[in-house]
This record gives sequence, structure tokens and C-alpha cells, in this order.
Amino acid sequence: MTTRRPCIGVFDSGFGGLTVLKELVALIPDADYIYFGDTARLPYGSKSAETVAKYAVGAAHYLEEHGARMLVVACNTATALALDQIRAAAHIPVEGVVEPGAQRASVASKNRKVVVIGTEATVTSHAYLKALDARGVQAREKACPLLVPLVEEGWVEHPVTEQVARIYLNEAFANGFESADALVLGCTHYPLIKPLLHRVAPPHVTIVDSAESTAMVVSKVLGISPINVPESDERRQAPRLKFFATDSVEKFRRLGPRFLGHPIEDVVHVDLKE
Amino acid sequence: MTTRRPCIGVFDSGFGGLTVLKELVALIPDADYIYFGDTARLPYGSKSAETVAKYAVGAAHYLEEHGARMLVVACNTATALALDQIRAAAHIPVEGVVEPGAQRASVASKNRKVVVIGTEATVTSHAYLKALDARGVQAREKACPLLVPLVEEGWVEHPVTEQVARIYLNEAFANGFESADALVLGCTHYPLIKPLLHRVAPPHVTIVDSAESTAMVVSKVLGISPINVPESDERRQAPRLKFFATDSVEKFRRLGPRFLGHPIEDVVHVDLKE
Repeated sequence: MTTRRPCIGVFDSGFGGLTVLKELVALIPDADYIYFGDTARLPYGSKSAETVAKYAVGAAHYLEEHGARMLVVACNTATALALDQIRAAAHIPVEGVVEPGAQRASVASKNRKVVVIGTEATVTSHAYLKALDARGVQAREKACPLLVPLVEEGWVEHPVTEQVARIYLNEAFANGFESADALVLGCTHYPLIKPLLHRVAPPHVTIVDSAESTAMVVSKVLGISPINVPESDERRQAPRLKFFATDSVEKFRRLGPRFLGHPIEDVVHVDLKE
Repeated sequence: MTTRRPCIGVFDSGFGGLTVLKELVALIPDADYIYFGDTARLPYGSKSAETVAKYAVGAAHYLEEHGARMLVVACNTATALALDQIRAAAHIPVEGVVEPGAQRASVASKNRKVVVIGTEATVTSHAYLKALDARGVQAREKACPLLVPLVEEGWVEHPVTEQVARIYLNEAFANGFESADALVLGCTHYPLIKPLLHRVAPPHVTIVDSAESTAMVVSKVLGISPINVPESDERRQAPRLKFFATDSVEKFRRLGPRFLGHPIEDVVHVDLKE
């Protein structure tokens, strides 16, 4: 079997999408990855659908022009607000993070009740609510705007973060959702505080990480399964990663590894024309 | 005296600059104001100097083209990182918020030791440190990246905000700065939590609000003093305010009043070409 090595474009407003890239690389190591972080205009989570769609389509074009043969929108906000526009504008297959997360939550939830946490924009779009409703699952969506800045401050095991998470989750797992048995991490920053969320969420709750679910869907779309590519395969090479950032390259190199889990070297600055 | 009614352009990355506009309107009511909030690309506080300078110069041009005869950079980050570039690019007088804040702190501090709190970018630029050093005052600059999102969440009197402020200020008023006797609010969001900061800061500390100091400097530059414009003056008119926002107009109308202190009607969407 001599499948051509795929080039996968991964796009996010900033650093959070690196948690999706991390899962992709773990599941599909035999690929090239180009990552676009729109750090000059982050965060998307507090912005309008029109603005987010415009930025996301621009990023999709950029990755396609730079060789991507498949695009992963590794940003819940961009997926929730602009997946249709991105698909319409792109000439390659496009996968978002919402459908995979909803699918996994639907499998995980016995009580057919799920809590989804995300940014203000993701929650306002009701993308998860619709995706879960289509699977016969009731969803409570809860915006948690402070969790992203807390993660970016590096307070991933801090008492303040635990207190904030407790306030948000207490509000979400209430008023008819006490029996919800899955918690969807509807923002790519949240996997960094998964251990803390495990402690704060009710004990019967399964945590669904959209990053993991998305990587599994992408591997299926590409027809690449870890079982088909044994560790001993001589043709197998290490993943090649290249990064594009619209703001400071130095900052991307400094903060990115927190999300990706290993050092970042090859970052190119993208100068937005405006 | 028949001074021509001035048109003052006020610029910020988003909503924070409205606290400066509020002080300007209070001190110089007999003026027209046009406000530019770059809400599609906020926040500036975590971005690089190059990116902030590019955005700020664009906003300055926009306000000048729309009739501003003076420009107030009502954003600490843009002032700290890009005031020289904005002045070089503009054809009208430009005032920032750093020098007025530093001047007021210098007057307020008997011990010649001051703590300045602000965004990561403002602190990294050391703009306040330099401005205070030039006045013989020692400065400790402390980045407080969580305070902006806490204010935007509306938690202005919340125990979490108090706990976060206490952590930041305890770190700042330490290691030789226990005797600092002025606290400069080096971010336009912070005036909204001034009562909370008063409780958390050491009792001997005077709080210096850059918004107030800047409004006083602008009134001096324009030669307009409240004393020269008595309340009974028949020629005097209410201030006229017009707003431009690069992201959602609806959101600007909804969140803006928290910062300005009264309703916002006339908001025009600016479509950034990119």
C-alpha cells in the first residue's frame, strides 16, 4: 500500500487548535501538517458571525494555497459560526469540531442529556444544541468566557480557576440538567484543564473532548487507521509540522508548546493586508 | 468668545476607551465626539507592537478622514506601543493616556514609588516605567491579564475578581514596593473596578485613573476649561457622540453603556478591508 502522504491544514484563531493538532499527530503521524493561527485577531469567541466567517474563509484560502489537501477547522467558534461558508469557499474536504464532539457525546450519554461548555459565540450559535438535538440528545449550552484567559494565564491548576469552573458548572448542571451525564469541551482551550474539570463536574459525568473526537473523524475520512500503519513500517516518517501566525512569531513559539505538548520551531509570520 | 466647537476623535481597541470618553464628555461637554472601537480585532493587550501599531494608525486615519481635529488614543496598549507612529502618521494633535497618568501619579506619590497595573503588552513596553523614571519616580509594573475578561464578564463586584485582584496586587506591592503610595490604572477597563481595587490595595495608596488625567490634559490642550464655559452659557450645547465599531453594532450598543455610563444610540459598522 503506497498511499500518498497527506497534507492536512489546521486552522484556529490562535493556540487552542494546537490541542486538536496534538490529537491528529498522535493518531495520524504519517502526514504533513500546516497550521494557521490567526493570533493577530484572536479571540474569535466574543465576535460576531460575520466577522468570524470573513476571517475563517481567509485562513482556509491561505492553507489551501499553501498545499493543504484537507482542512480541519480546529476552532469551535469558527466551526459553529462559519463551517458552511468555509465549505462553500474551499475546494478541499473540510472537517469541523462540532459534529465529531456531538457524535461522541451522543454515544457517551445514557440519560440523553448533555452539558456543552464553550465561548459566548459558540453558545449563541446553538451549533451543539442542533447537532445533539438531531441525535435525540437534549443539550444545555453554557458560555464560560473566563476559562480561556485563565488557561492563557497558565492557571491550569489554580484555585481561582477551580472556583470559576465550579460557578459555571453549578449553573449548567441545574434546573433539569442535574442528570446530564456528559460534558462536552466545546472550546479547544479546555483540554488543558481536563483534570480540574473532572474534579469539579458531578462524579457520574463523562468528559467528551472535541479534539480527540475530531482526530478520529479525520483519520476515518482519510482512510488512515493506526492499525493499517504499523509502528515498524519502514516507509513511515515522523510528522512534519509547519506553523503560520498572524501576530508575533516569538510569542507563538513561547505559548504554543503548552497546547501542543512539544516544542515548536518552524513558525512563519503572515502579514495580513489591510 | 466664540471658539469653534471642536471635533475630538477617540480611539480604542474596543469598549475600555469609553471610560476616557466619559471623562472627556464630563469635562468638555461642548464638543463633538467620534469614537472608533476596533472590536473586530480586540484585545490589543496580548498582541505585538507591530500589529498594534498597524491597527492604531489605521484607526487614526479613519477618525481624521471623518472630521476629527484632535485625536485621543484612549487605549493604554496603543499609547504604550504606538504613540510615536500614530503621531507621525496623523496630521492633527494626538494625545495618549500614558503621560497624563504618569504626571498625575508623580504628583500623588510622596514616597516616589508607584505601582502600575495594565495589560501584558503595556507592561512589556515599559512605557509607564520610562514616563515615571523621567519624573524621578520608581515604578513597579504588573500585568493583570485576567482583569479585562472579568470586567467584560460583568463581575465588577464579584469575590473571584476580588481574589484575582488581591493576588496581583500582593505580588506588586512587595519586594521593595511595600511603600509605594500610588496605584496607576494603566488600562481603560480598570476604572469599572475602582471601588474593589480601593478595598484590595494597601490603605495608604492613592488610585490614579488615567481616564480622568487624560481628559484634563485634553481640555488644557484645547484651551477649554469648565470655568470658561459656565453652565448658564446659552451657546452651550449637549455633547454630540457618534460611534464606529469594526465588529457587531448590536453588541457595541449592548456592552458600551457599562463603560460610558449612559445609553449608546448612533453606532456605525466599519467594514475592514482584508
